[in-house]
Amino acid sequence: MHLLSQCYLFKGLSEPQLLRLSEITKEIQIQKGQFFMREGQQAEELFVLKEGAVELLIKVEEGFDLPIAIFRNPGDCTGTSALVEPYIFSLNSRCVKDSKILVINKTALKELMQGDHELGCTIMRNLAQHLLDRLKETRQELKVHFKTIFRSTQL
Amino acid sequence: MHLLSQCYLFKGLSEPQLLRLSEITKEIQIQKGQFFMREGQQAEELFVLKEGAVELLIKVEEGFDLPIAIFRNPGDCTGTSALVEPYIFSLNSRCVKDSKILVINKTALKELMQGDHELGCTIMRNLAQHLLDRLKETRQELKVHFKTIFRSTQL
Repeated sequence: MHLLSQCYLFKGLSEPQLLRLSEITKEIQIQKGQFFMREGQQAEELFVLKEGAVELLIKVEEGFDLPIAIFRNPGDCTGTSALVEPYIFSLNSRCVKDSKILVINKTALKELMQGDHELGCTIMRNLAQHLLDRLKETRQELKVHFKTIFRSTQL
Repeated sequence: MHLLSQCYLFKGLSEPQLLRLSEITKEIQIQKGQFFMREGQQAEELFVLKEGAVELLIKVEEGFDLPIAIFRNPGDCTGTSALVEPYIFSLNSRCVKDSKILVINKTALKELMQGDHELGCTIMRNLAQHLLDRLKETRQELKVHFKTIFRSTQL
């Protein structure tokens, strides 16, 4: 429950809300090297890192996966596609160390959010804020590419 | 009110919820060529297109703004940074036709959402879904760049 409060998604939830959330959470162990989330698959679960390290990758083409982030901090999470239609993962995730991961089932979480709209609103606001930050970062990277192109056309 | 229901943010709201939303909405007219949203400015308002056309741009460097989208459909909206901390616009928006725009004040909307968590949850879920779609698109564009780089290193 203490760990869940460290995840950006659950920031601002009350103790009773965190308790109800912890009741639908289970813990799994995943070995180093193992993938637990694949781009294009149905997103049925949300994952919160407890111990270990997780790498996120996007497939650029066959045989070339581009690493975009490594999570090492307890509370880091992946699989937020389980919160948003069409519920399809958009990334690959694998453990780069033996890891312990908290798993929250999509359907159970949805029921919790429908039964407590304040909790739902907090989680969705946290998610939107996080996605907006990621979108700004990704646009920033794109800018760098366009800047290079723009400069080369100015020579 | 009918127009608000066409905006992706307000999809799924009930008639009474849309009515309350319309009560905090005002209409303004903006001339062709005029900017009404600047990157880096405090996001105090959300904008929904009623009539006309709006171009969104990101500043790549001094004298070079990259157009990233044009909105022409009634209900298209911009300024969602007004819904998310730190409430700073991340884009420039200008009208490319004389336009009529609905304006929703950030503070009034926040109060409405705090008074009706179901409404808040719906709006935030719609926003998160939209941002995830934009993030996927932007990553897709980045992939294209990396693919080009990857291929050139394989030659």
